[in-house]
Amino acid sequence: MMSERIAVIGAGLIGRAWTIVFARAGYPVVLYDAAAGACEKALVLIDGALADLQAQGLIDRATATAAAERIEISSDLVTAVAEAVHIQENVPEELAIKQALYQELDRLAPAQAVLASSTSSMPASTFTEDLTGRARCLVAHPVNPPHLVPLVELVPAPWTDPEVVVRTRSLMQAVGQVPITLKKEIQGFVLNRLQGALLAEAFRLVEDDICETEDIDRAVSDGLGLRWSFMGPFETIDLNAPEGIADYCRRFGPMYHEMQQSQADPREWTPALVERIERQRRQVLAQNELQQRQDWRDRRLAAMVAAKQRAAQDIGD
Amino acid sequence: MMSERIAVIGAGLIGRAWTIVFARAGYPVVLYDAAAGACEKALVLIDGALADLQAQGLIDRATATAAAERIEISSDLVTAVAEAVHIQENVPEELAIKQALYQELDRLAPAQAVLASSTSSMPASTFTEDLTGRARCLVAHPVNPPHLVPLVELVPAPWTDPEVVVRTRSLMQAVGQVPITLKKEIQGFVLNRLQGALLAEAFRLVEDDICETEDIDRAVSDGLGLRWSFMGPFETIDLNAPEGIADYCRRFGPMYHEMQQSQADPREWTPALVERIERQRRQVLAQNELQQRQDWRDRRLAAMVAAKQRAAQDIGD
Repeated sequence: MMSERIAVIGAGLIGRAWTIVFARAGYPVVLYDAAAGACEKALVLIDGALADLQAQGLIDRATATAAAERIEISSDLVTAVAEAVHIQENVPEELAIKQALYQELDRLAPAQAVLASSTSSMPASTFTEDLTGRARCLVAHPVNPPHLVPLVELVPAPWTDPEVVVRTRSLMQAVGQVPITLKKEIQGFVLNRLQGALLAEAFRLVEDDICETEDIDRAVSDGLGLRWSFMGPFETIDLNAPEGIADYCRRFGPMYHEMQQSQADPREWTPALVERIERQRRQVLAQNELQQRQDWRDRRLAAMVAAKQRAAQDIGD
Repeated sequence: MMSERIAVIGAGLIGRAWTIVFARAGYPVVLYDAAAGACEKALVLIDGALADLQAQGLIDRATATAAAERIEISSDLVTAVAEAVHIQENVPEELAIKQALYQELDRLAPAQAVLASSTSSMPASTFTEDLTGRARCLVAHPVNPPHLVPLVELVPAPWTDPEVVVRTRSLMQAVGQVPITLKKEIQGFVLNRLQGALLAEAFRLVEDDICETEDIDRAVSDGLGLRWSFMGPFETIDLNAPEGIADYCRRFGPMYHEMQQSQADPREWTPALVERIERQRRQVLAQNELQQRQDWRDRRLAAMVAAKQRAAQDIGD
């Protein structure tokens, strides 16, 4: 199985991270980008990311070296996909670009290859409808960056072959990701719908002058998020009432339902509100420190992922 | 300052955890409970919890021993509050019980003592309005269990003296908690409003048959929650667009706004839906394993808290 080749299309942030995910797990990967020099530049960044993973104790030296050796690059799409069993696409989120690319991919890729898109916002039905091989297309949406955050949302189009979903789920598990499967397409998929619901309330609380952005961030980073980093919202409430989740719903369902009435007005994020929130953020973090803070985030993320793996081994999962 | 006494009212789960929080930080604590034998039983459980904290590397042996020595118990309210500067109340969430108790506390406690309630659902205005000392009352709502999760929501009633909020915020910081301040009362405060918004969408996704409860849990525990365990929702999106949060809102605001329209129907958690979700949960975790899983949760929580403290030291906060 490890000789099965993966093609990664697009050498940006997500494409590079996917390349690491597959190569780290033992798969030969061809990284493709049409832009001159893009793949060469990506290889340097990938080497740096592999070194970081090693420094963070997430992989050993031998794995890092072997992973780097499994990566080929190509600026020729025909070569890139020629022997692939799975093609992971990461091109810009523009409908015309995806539609044109999938026409090509469907023509060039081996008949058995799965075509998976990393899109966070475009259901596969919007760019695969007219393809001969549309049954082998689906969305496999990762979280940024996928070589640190394991979740992948699998979202089939109405015409996706169920077997393609099963194969992709197996592949994702084989490379150490955590796949979830949506039964049908929905705007925002699951992850961004959950994030969006929480963000909507966060923006509302600031707009209604209940508290400041920094305090809302603390409510999550020093409260809700600690539990949610190793168990989901259903398990959390299942363990928060003596008799489990049904007991919890009996106790708190009416409170949450009443609360929902006051959260039911969809609000635009107006320029004035966004400016207010941005001003509060810029007091905490200057504009020119954003890049440095992103590096901080990735290091902290790696530390939490490593700690979580240790805890799962020591305490159980 | 450390000679300032704290009174903790109610020796249940939350009262015991608060006792640990204050005693661990060096404050003498009187733990009060009216029920015969409740405090004696609580002391045994507190000793066990201190031993756990020590085993998890969160406190050293000397701190555990000294903390235990700082705890007195009392079943006499007069004695319990006599010298307290801060009184942390943890009695059942019933209006009549709180109202009666606060009458007593206001009469018995020293004039300068703050009366803080751990309530998760009852604004202080509902049980302090008629008190002479209503200006010294507020809500200080912790997350379960407060000796592991540091967040505390401070929610003043309309008549709470702003100085009382400032003093309580300082005390919470002094004992290592992370206080946030609400500017006014609102149903569910901030933490449960954020949790409620996410739960509402989680229940909706199951009801609409988009995916199973376990996959929603994974979307959080292996996706959103990893980031949210050390940075909040605003910081997360601030770092998820090249130019920061305003840039993010320009890019994704319209998508989230459209999504909100489809999340705007408040839904009751119907018996059929709750039964369906409970059935899925009970396949993952049997009813008779709930208690054991709660112990697992606390151990995993302690491991994440310890790892977060180390990462904050090594990588920065």
